[in-house]
Amino acid sequence: MEVGFIGVGRMGSAMAANLLKAGHSVRVWDKSPEPLPALQRQGATIATGAQDAFRGDATFSMLPNDDAIRDVFIAGRMAPAAGSPVHVNMATASVQLAKELAAHHAAQGVAYVAATVWGRPDVAAAGKLNIVAAGDAAAIARVLPLFDVIGQKTWRVGDEPSRANLAKIAGNLMVACAIEAMAEAAALVRAHGMSAPDVLEAVIGSLFDVPVYRGYGNMIAKRQFEPPGFDLVLGMKDVRLALMAGEEAHVPLPFASVLRDSFMDAIANGDANKDWSAIAQVAARRAGLQD
Amino acid sequence: MEVGFIGVGRMGSAMAANLLKAGHSVRVWDKSPEPLPALQRQGATIATGAQDAFRGDATFSMLPNDDAIRDVFIAGRMAPAAGSPVHVNMATASVQLAKELAAHHAAQGVAYVAATVWGRPDVAAAGKLNIVAAGDAAAIARVLPLFDVIGQKTWRVGDEPSRANLAKIAGNLMVACAIEAMAEAAALVRAHGMSAPDVLEAVIGSLFDVPVYRGYGNMIAKRQFEPPGFDLVLGMKDVRLALMAGEEAHVPLPFASVLRDSFMDAIANGDANKDWSAIAQVAARRAGLQD
Amino acid sequence: MEVGFIGVGRMGSAMAANLLKAGHSVRVWDKSPEPLPALQRQGATIATGAQDAFRGDATFSMLPNDDAIRDVFIAGRMAPAAGSPVHVNMATASVQLAKELAAHHAAQGVAYVAATVWGRPDVAAAGKLNIVAAGDAAAIARVLPLFDVIGQKTWRVGDEPSRANLAKIAGNLMVACAIEAMAEAAALVRAHGMSAPDVLEAVIGSLFDVPVYRGYGNMIAKRQFEPPGFDLVLGMKDVRLALMAGEEAHVPLPFASVLRDSFMDAIANGDANKDWSAIAQVAARRAGLQD
Amino acid sequence: MEVGFIGVGRMGSAMAANLLKAGHSVRVWDKSPEPLPALQRQGATIATGAQDAFRGDATFSMLPNDDAIRDVFIAGRMAPAAGSPVHVNMATASVQLAKELAAHHAAQGVAYVAATVWGRPDVAAAGKLNIVAAGDAAAIARVLPLFDVIGQKTWRVGDEPSRANLAKIAGNLMVACAIEAMAEAAALVRAHGMSAPDVLEAVIGSLFDVPVYRGYGNMIAKRQFEPPGFDLVLGMKDVRLALMAGEEAHVPLPFASVLRDSFMDAIANGDANKDWSAIAQVAARRAGLQD
Repeated sequence: MEVGFIGVGRMGSAMAANLLKAGHSVRVWDKSPEPLPALQRQGATIATGAQDAFRGDATFSMLPNDDAIRDVFIAGRMAPAAGSPVHVNMATASVQLAKELAAHHAAQGVAYVAATVWGRPDVAAAGKLNIVAAGDAAAIARVLPLFDVIGQKTWRVGDEPSRANLAKIAGNLMVACAIEAMAEAAALVRAHGMSAPDVLEAVIGSLFDVPVYRGYGNMIAKRQFEPPGFDLVLGMKDVRLALMAGEEAHVPLPFASVLRDSFMDAIANGDANKDWSAIAQVAARRAGLQD
Repeated sequence: MEVGFIGVGRMGSAMAANLLKAGHSVRVWDKSPEPLPALQRQGATIATGAQDAFRGDATFSMLPNDDAIRDVFIAGRMAPAAGSPVHVNMATASVQLAKELAAHHAAQGVAYVAATVWGRPDVAAAGKLNIVAAGDAAAIARVLPLFDVIGQKTWRVGDEPSRANLAKIAGNLMVACAIEAMAEAAALVRAHGMSAPDVLEAVIGSLFDVPVYRGYGNMIAKRQFEPPGFDLVLGMKDVRLALMAGEEAHVPLPFASVLRDSFMDAIANGDANKDWSAIAQVAARRAGLQD
Repeated sequence: MEVGFIGVGRMGSAMAANLLKAGHSVRVWDKSPEPLPALQRQGATIATGAQDAFRGDATFSMLPNDDAIRDVFIAGRMAPAAGSPVHVNMATASVQLAKELAAHHAAQGVAYVAATVWGRPDVAAAGKLNIVAAGDAAAIARVLPLFDVIGQKTWRVGDEPSRANLAKIAGNLMVACAIEAMAEAAALVRAHGMSAPDVLEAVIGSLFDVPVYRGYGNMIAKRQFEPPGFDLVLGMKDVRLALMAGEEAHVPLPFASVLRDSFMDAIANGDANKDWSAIAQVAARRAGLQD
Repeated sequence: MEVGFIGVGRMGSAMAANLLKAGHSVRVWDKSPEPLPALQRQGATIATGAQDAFRGDATFSMLPNDDAIRDVFIAGRMAPAAGSPVHVNMATASVQLAKELAAHHAAQGVAYVAATVWGRPDVAAAGKLNIVAAGDAAAIARVLPLFDVIGQKTWRVGDEPSRANLAKIAGNLMVACAIEAMAEAAALVRAHGMSAPDVLEAVIGSLFDVPVYRGYGNMIAKRQFEPPGFDLVLGMKDVRLALMAGEEAHVPLPFASVLRDSFMDAIANGDANKDWSAIAQVAARRAGLQD
């Protein structure tokens, strides 16, 4: 298929590369040109602009936040350069932006699918992402073969694209909760003179043996939060998205509220650019534990 | 080996049965006689009292709470009836009781091991429990062959028995946190008109595919909290143990504080005897969601 | 002096009336015309539009929220109709809007003072408001005689206008905290079978004998939250302003987080249009107390 | 009247001195003898033990905590030495201890009144305490003339003595909430570069002009928490009493939960022996503010 790809940071590049490997024709674009040559060597065409990548059968976008998406797709009044591509938005966006973009594309007559993903860049490179998709069934059917290339499984959560965004927000909230839970457990056992690595190993090995717990548990156990796998400020953004979605529908989220305070404490105390599991330092510091 | 077993409720019975199947001689006792005949049919000897089960190579106890343990082992000034059994205490006890009992047994010259377990009765029946053990290394070595019969893996967390209790408390806190995280995620997506089962399926299938999330996620998705797998009031007890342990060492535990309030809300609103995942009803009610 | 007054709801009308009584010439405007005739009868001139009220020595504005302020003063590109009036903004606005408006007025060469007030309409009518003012010292000096007419005391908190807004936000947060504190105390004693009115009377009479505690304490004691003195949704707005200001400067505000959840619980359960002290119903409901 | 006084620390001494000044005969005792000579010089008789001070018309006790009360009045199986004194217990005790002591005295046939007080030692010295009393009406009537000597007002909250304890606990919770509210407000404005003293002055002067806010607000504004007016560890004890009372009746108390975590954070970080308003340091530290 003819595929455009807008936003080829670490995640986007890995997905675009898999599409190329599977024999699709891919036209890539990014505001910052660094990742483009490598994709060109793998067979991609470099687009002359976002507009030029918005063509063919489908255009994926993997942009960092609401503002970037709004700039490219709404403020820029971008229309397809050729064909009638389905726009597949993979970003973790707010529910509000998701609805705004859906309305914008509906007015344009552009088919729109939100397809958020879970998985780090190495998982993306292996084509093993989990994809949560929402949107018009016919549009999803058109891009499903592409999803099968980049992901191991696609979960459908409805016709309204914003639902994929909310599912992603809810899932990320659950990840953040798992991190804070480990942070408190680690502070508790350390303050009693025990080895946090031993206890986390026992608990995770017994009950929570999945990469989310293994990976963040390992960082918390070793108290090593650099280099970040996922930046703490981005984690804060995700928690804020959950709180905003909660506010929109009047849903108290006391765990999310605690997380917000923990993230702010971490940022105020210099850990903004560490991995988001560095909120474990907040729990430790509050318990008077020295590094 | 000659083994005593004090406290043969659902968990204790399953463990005692596995010890019998493995060829050990087991002498059982329980305050309430109901479960005893079945074990007798499987080859157990019924002890005449707790004292009479405190003999041989090892005596396991699986009692429901601090008070029951204190009544049997401390207040009753019980001493071994014969042999020099290692006392293996499998209960989820407070750190304080754990230390008190360790001191008591040390004064008696009784070897003492705390070995807490994770796993429901069906897991116990399958001999697949995860065991977290702490205590004198020689004493653990004596009972390790028995642990291999009842569990799939034994995690060691130190020489001081109370450490197994604290590890268990920390792990149970993490389970309770996972439940509340799912409860908030479910309330959030339901309030936006989405299907909580679909979203939990996507999130759990993608990121949290372990029985803890599967089992409680299923109850939360279906909003079906009876019959209870683990009673809400017992969950409240476990959170209280975490808060007590935190207070002892001056560790703020904001998630545990939220959980305490959620459990109390649930109890005050009539859900004390449902499964502890019924705190999801608290999150739903606070969001104005009808059953 | 020649004074404009934009926004003459209950608070604005009371202040404008006092300015008239003190002999000032007042030109009033409001999007909704209902309150204008009464002020005209008291001697006010009715302006033909916001623009027409932006003239003379000073123009006060008392608008309900950021959007209303932005519409009138920024989006409308309004400039003074005559004279070089000091704009005195009395609204509870966000710190962000306050900074935006300060920059806007600076670019226009309009002197700008933020002067937030505490006091209900009856206090405004009595000319007994407490005023918290920030802005250029010379500009404040020009309007101070007017403040002396509408308030009993003016507190100065710096040269940057947004500081008056932040002081107001901080003070309103403290009021909301006092309400939640009484709500929890009332639920606690009621759940033990005691009379909340008796206990609140004893505590307030002994320790907190000021109108904030007396007034809200009385509503909580009687569980009578209508008619609202201050709408619950506006209270939610104020707590949100505090959280936003905290987020901007990375300040964890755990009490504000709890309040946010309580307000959302109240809104989700049908109390949006009651007095904001109706968060006491949340505390009562969570404790299983019947109305 | 013939009055005994057990526990003459700073508060007890001030009250006993006022009783002496009013012409009553007072027999004093304390575990630590330091304060006794000064009272003797003011006309008190020094008792030979607690027992010897338990006589006459009334015996007041002002002991620091549940354990001390239990030791003296229950474990010691103390009975009146002479007369049929009403025992007036002024301590901040738990509801549980209050009930236990009421039952104990009922069995002994000793009339029992709980009369908790608000006020610092200087207020006690001025005879201006606020007293919250509960107990048998006839017993209260007997000691009311003594209350009029030591306090400015007596609030009645029922026949069951424990109710005075719960009212005191509820009131102290409200004081702790006021402190945390000021702590958050101060951190918020400081993080925005404002003067916390100026803002607290404006807010307190406008809305909260009572000694509780003035006194703690002043300590928070100056960030000077020594010497303590009320020790932080005692504040922690009071919050724990509120949480225990809440737990007994299934009342979620989210503000109390936040306070508990703040107090623990303060203790873990070295402020146990400062004034309890030093929880403002927790708020400041979490916001990254330097001292």
